[in-house]
Amino acid sequence: MSVFDAIDTRRTIRQYDQSFVPPKEHVKKIAEAAIKSPTGYNRQGVDLLVVTNKDIINNMNDKVFDALDEDAKNYFRTRKELGLEKFITCDAPVLYVLYANGKTDDVYARLDAGIMAESILLTATSLGYATMPIGTFMIGDLSEYGIPKDKVLLAIAMGKARAGIEIPPCDRNTKITYLE
Amino acid sequence: MSVFDAIDTRRTIRQYDQSFVPPKEHVKKIAEAAIKSPTGYNRQGVDLLVVTNKDIINNMNDKVFDALDEDAKNYFRTRKELGLEKFITCDAPVLYVLYANGKTDDVYARLDAGIMAESILLTATSLGYATMPIGTFMIGDLSEYGIPKDKVLLAIAMGKARAGIEIPPCDRNTKITYLE
Repeated sequence: MSVFDAIDTRRTIRQYDQSFVPPKEHVKKIAEAAIKSPTGYNRQGVDLLVVTNKDIINNMNDKVFDALDEDAKNYFRTRKELGLEKFITCDAPVLYVLYANGKTDDVYARLDAGIMAESILLTATSLGYATMPIGTFMIGDLSEYGIPKDKVLLAIAMGKARAGIEIPPCDRNTKITYLE
Repeated sequence: MSVFDAIDTRRTIRQYDQSFVPPKEHVKKIAEAAIKSPTGYNRQGVDLLVVTNKDIINNMNDKVFDALDEDAKNYFRTRKELGLEKFITCDAPVLYVLYANGKTDDVYARLDAGIMAESILLTATSLGYATMPIGTFMIGDLSEYGIPKDKVLLAIAMGKARAGIEIPPCDRNTKITYLE
């Protein structure tokens, strides 16, 4: 799939086919695409945790959910209507967690994590997968999995979209100014 | 060009063909790819300035350069060896400037800018162009061009690579951990 088609067709999907786990070869190919992305001054200040163990994904979901305030919990609870059990990770079979390793400052780490995230999203899209960026993961304490507290930058859920779900439109009104 | 090939072949290039300006159709296609990228909670907190006016690009370069401390100026001055006149923008014919519009907080704005930046870099690569992310733009005051002070998140230079230049290797040792 071309870059432009991947950008054009990518949508955030929250309903995954529970009977399908992407093959390890694809999971690894996406991770390798991520780390080929550029980083500020090539400092490579973002490391990557790739989780395909369902118990660990569920435990991460619960840790993040428990850290939410009550309003946010209620917001995420509305996802029960989508038939979900885990409202943050949306029962996706694969989770990529981007976290800061201290080789760069927070400003660059976030920019670099965004760059890596888009490589993950587009590579996954080009392989036929559905994806969902999860900013909420920033609040969880995942130190039991080797991620220093408060160092998660972003997580990305990945899997096969459930058949028959509604694909949301691309609703954008971002301002572009041309100086010619 | 496929997503994976674009990620695999993209390199930061600082030497541009001075006789070639990318056609407006390509410049716009890249900008439109950028704004189709996902943003946290779809808040679209990053706007985009696309500059093809050489005088403005040069003026932006000078404003950023002048704001550097002397050590940083000396670091960038070494780029004179590459045959460059403007050491920050590297004489590129097109500049994409991503800046925060206040619709989201700084943390999400930086993540979103990184995501948009990778869309720009990969779309440009797939169209045959060379690119360079410029984090240094964060320090410049570009308020005369409508960008609120301290709101630049990242800039990306784009153009055609100069013939015969050395393409740097992809040097990565980012840590990937698999939890299976």
